[in-house]
Amino acid sequence: MRYRTHTCGELNEGHVGKMTTLNGWVQKRRDLGGLIFLDVRDRSGIVQVVCNPEHAPEATKIAEKVRSEFVLAIQGQVVSRSEETINKKMKTGAIEIVAEEVEIVNEAKTPPFAVEDDVEVDETTRLKHRYIDLRRPMMQNTLILRHQVMQKVRSFLSEEGFIEVETPMLTKSTPEGARDYLVPSRVHKGEFYALPQSPQIFKQLLMVSGMERYFQIVRCFRDEDLRADRQPEFTQIDIEASFLEPEVFLSMMETMVADLCEETIGHKVSTPFERLTYKEAMNRFGSDRPDLRFDMELVDLSEMVKESGFQVFASTVANGGRVRAINVKGQAGWSRKQVDEWGKIAQQFGAKGLAWLAVKEEGTKGPVAKFLGETEWHDIMKATEAETGDLLFFIADQPKKSAEVLGELRVRLAKHLDLIPKGVFRFAWVTEFPLLAYDEEADRWFAEHHPFTSPMDEDLPLLETDPGSVRAKAYDMVLNGYELGGGSQRIHRREVQEAMFRALGFTMEEAKEEFGFLLDAFEYGAPPHGGVAFGLDRIVMLLAGRSNLRDTIAFPKTASASCLLTDAPSAVEENQLRELHISLRES
Amino acid sequence: MRYRTHTCGELNEGHVGKMTTLNGWVQKRRDLGGLIFLDVRDRSGIVQVVCNPEHAPEATKIAEKVRSEFVLAIQGQVVSRSEETINKKMKTGAIEIVAEEVEIVNEAKTPPFAVEDDVEVDETTRLKHRYIDLRRPMMQNTLILRHQVMQKVRSFLSEEGFIEVETPMLTKSTPEGARDYLVPSRVHKGEFYALPQSPQIFKQLLMVSGMERYFQIVRCFRDEDLRADRQPEFTQIDIEASFLEPEVFLSMMETMVADLCEETIGHKVSTPFERLTYKEAMNRFGSDRPDLRFDMELVDLSEMVKESGFQVFASTVANGGRVRAINVKGQAGWSRKQVDEWGKIAQQFGAKGLAWLAVKEEGTKGPVAKFLGETEWHDIMKATEAETGDLLFFIADQPKKSAEVLGELRVRLAKHLDLIPKGVFRFAWVTEFPLLAYDEEADRWFAEHHPFTSPMDEDLPLLETDPGSVRAKAYDMVLNGYELGGGSQRIHRREVQEAMFRALGFTMEEAKEEFGFLLDAFEYGAPPHGGVAFGLDRIVMLLAGRSNLRDTIAFPKTASASCLLTDAPSAVEENQLRELHISLRES
Repeated sequence: MRYRTHTCGELNEGHVGKMTTLNGWVQKRRDLGGLIFLDVRDRSGIVQVVCNPEHAPEATKIAEKVRSEFVLAIQGQVVSRSEETINKKMKTGAIEIVAEEVEIVNEAKTPPFAVEDDVEVDETTRLKHRYIDLRRPMMQNTLILRHQVMQKVRSFLSEEGFIEVETPMLTKSTPEGARDYLVPSRVHKGEFYALPQSPQIFKQLLMVSGMERYFQIVRCFRDEDLRADRQPEFTQIDIEASFLEPEVFLSMMETMVADLCEETIGHKVSTPFERLTYKEAMNRFGSDRPDLRFDMELVDLSEMVKESGFQVFASTVANGGRVRAINVKGQAGWSRKQVDEWGKIAQQFGAKGLAWLAVKEEGTKGPVAKFLGETEWHDIMKATEAETGDLLFFIADQPKKSAEVLGELRVRLAKHLDLIPKGVFRFAWVTEFPLLAYDEEADRWFAEHHPFTSPMDEDLPLLETDPGSVRAKAYDMVLNGYELGGGSQRIHRREVQEAMFRALGFTMEEAKEEFGFLLDAFEYGAPPHGGVAFGLDRIVMLLAGRSNLRDTIAFPKTASASCLLTDAPSAVEENQLRELHISLRES
Repeated sequence: MRYRTHTCGELNEGHVGKMTTLNGWVQKRRDLGGLIFLDVRDRSGIVQVVCNPEHAPEATKIAEKVRSEFVLAIQGQVVSRSEETINKKMKTGAIEIVAEEVEIVNEAKTPPFAVEDDVEVDETTRLKHRYIDLRRPMMQNTLILRHQVMQKVRSFLSEEGFIEVETPMLTKSTPEGARDYLVPSRVHKGEFYALPQSPQIFKQLLMVSGMERYFQIVRCFRDEDLRADRQPEFTQIDIEASFLEPEVFLSMMETMVADLCEETIGHKVSTPFERLTYKEAMNRFGSDRPDLRFDMELVDLSEMVKESGFQVFASTVANGGRVRAINVKGQAGWSRKQVDEWGKIAQQFGAKGLAWLAVKEEGTKGPVAKFLGETEWHDIMKATEAETGDLLFFIADQPKKSAEVLGELRVRLAKHLDLIPKGVFRFAWVTEFPLLAYDEEADRWFAEHHPFTSPMDEDLPLLETDPGSVRAKAYDMVLNGYELGGGSQRIHRREVQEAMFRALGFTMEEAKEEFGFLLDAFEYGAPPHGGVAFGLDRIVMLLAGRSNLRDTIAFPKTASASCLLTDAPSAVEENQLRELHISLRES
């Protein structure tokens, strides 16, 4: 076959008069007035080829057999289109190729759906024929963007002295954390490797190894029940540094992400990023990954309603709960039915109920209205900045629950009311996360992140007396309501690590049993270190302006962790299982 | 703690007079004349710190407690060393730091071995305490080299329009090929994922997807019995391209590798690389990955000895075998015992025996000598370019076996005789590999590479009549006796693929069952494509001048596929197995 001299998309008026050879796929064939027009596509774009039976009878004869998605090699001359046939929507629309030779390099069956961006096709069909789906320009562009993101992250980190080190995929199952994917060992009967949930322990070992600055763009695995934005295997930008002041590190990460936005999608992002403590994020937005693109902040009314005639408010506050509100601006006119719909949504998020007030010209309406005293009413109006025409939603519940439910409502309402500006990227750091969370069932404290996350120095004394109030040196980078990545300073001093294990209810022996080799390593001169892990899939999704994580992954899995293209997972031969010393369970 | 203003290794006479803060590990402490000298090490190098009790009594008091591998933060002034104390072996040997403050950031137990390059320590201890081992400069430099290789490969390929696409790790078990690592599915009872042996099928699917130029630096897995230079998980530089002329592609790969050598270790490599067909490589060097750094080529004497009085020679040739020789220059003086040792080595490689001739002043000696006629003797002397003082080794066996055994002897002899020049990189391509190999046991032909490798056009007709003589459009890049990578043009036309499957003894239905989704994909317009996969671990090993593949991997596994650091694989909880619908076999 003849190999290309140009790509389809690069041809323009500068090439007029030149001979060119193109390789690509037939996007479309049209027969018009004895001529055959072929739109030929490659990764770079589409160009129009004209076959004229008088000029090139052989080529035209071949072109007659051509159908969509045939692979062609075409030789011809670049010519200008006449004024009236110029296609301004096409990058190459000012020219066309007059074919001299057409070669069918490979034939194609009719594809199950057209290779176009705005084709309507269900995702199952797309995933089953992913090799067709990935031909669509939008999918190609997303994968190209993903490629660019990876290369830019690597070059940024390399320039900052970070070294990419590969860590094992066949590693050890860890009792804490999410569910592991296991890999039976053939050599070691009855033993298993685990696929890593993250390279956390290895990157900390690399810090003990004196690598000082490490990164890796690495596959991680979690065998969890999948939500729409989860995949059983996902890619993490994993970073760790020793001897680096946390503030300097955060600022470095901001620069990395800001550069990324500017260099891939041309979006300027200003640094430094806004900072919110976890507490502030929860109180103002009801979320530890707040969407800052719009207001509708939460207001805590507990102090004002603690003696309210509305019994639910008063008793909630009396029992240590909180009464919070959001002001849905200008929506006082919603029907009872509309408001009830939001009540149901609130219940789906775990609320007992949704109280409301509609501030109307004719007075305040809603089930709460009649119980409010004059002062109380005025205080609420002032605190929520309510004006005539506004609708107030209230949640009275335990402190965290009341914030979280309203936080979810806030985001849903903003989408529903179209309050979210397009093309805006609002980055922030959320800091000072709680170090520990109490698990009622196990009746003990668990590390929110992992047991090696450092407590804040000023909270250290509280580790023994009031573990729940200890804040961690942990930080999440958030963007538009998504968590892009999370990290922390790690504990590097033995006495702090011991205090942490005591708080978790471990003896040092138990700790050694669970995290032995890392604790051993820490005894041989561990440097102060910390790091972060970003979700690559999500970063690409947000940069590409997509809403489906699967669109950022070449060969993703479904919500039941299947690959529709290859049919994985699948049954295997009995002798394979025998070699691995395992058998299938009957029940 | 105080964070560093400089790294240890960067300090030099240009910094004299400046205050500096350093963070690092204590390489060595010496107490001398009331002063304490600390060699402080970080990733960049080592610098000497002096603590003077008169100048900085506090710092000196702290320094007294310091031992090897303690982590310190040190503040002090850079001063010139006096002429007689300059250490020319150290990069920073012209200066030292006069300590003002010393802070012990973390303590360290005495390490199991010293953090030095030339320390004698067995590999088991090194792997168990890998976090100490990796502190040694040689290990750090190897990992840094590995990092550089990865970044340079990526930037080269990116500039050539290749896009890095990640392919699944949880994929489908393939019946052909090496043994798979399996991963039981929790959601799909009785089903398993397989970890990829290579992304071969996915990269071909990406070509069908119109990605045109793909690469990935990717982990691959093979559950094989391990040799010294194999790891259960290894890293591959995986590349595939459509619409790219094979010659252009090979030349691009040459440039990539040559640039890599020059830019990482400063070694200039000239292109184009030498080419040898498989046949030529086997005939001249007895290997498909010949070491071209030295001569001692194989000579085929079959024609000359087919009527030899030495019965072994004559009957071997009569039975379709070959008689080959190498000339061990200048070693005619070896004792009978020495020669016999090489006979034993030849037998280890599968030879029936090793015949020899020593060409001495006093005549030709050796068991073969008395059987050779005058002409025969002269022919052999001429063909092997033998001179007085030379020793000839002969292997008479089946064609492939005779070449392979002599090929192995050739390499062993060259090492033994120190014939291999240091610092020489002899790259070559070996081409025209056999497409198929006959498996006696299964009584059928198997693909040498995989069933999608393209036969050479001119050999296509032979696919039906003489499958064993069909050559593939396959190529290996070899360096100094190692295979760096291998690749091929793939079949992209249905009729060729069908002929290939017929040659393999498959019906089209059987082929569909084994490779269904790829064959399906090929029906929707597959472009001509081909590619290569390089072994990253081996490339780094050769560039670093190491001989152990494990030295190029941060956390490698042993020959029994164990990780001595984490103790993987390990037993898991019964409830984990229950969730995965598997149980351990009793026997």
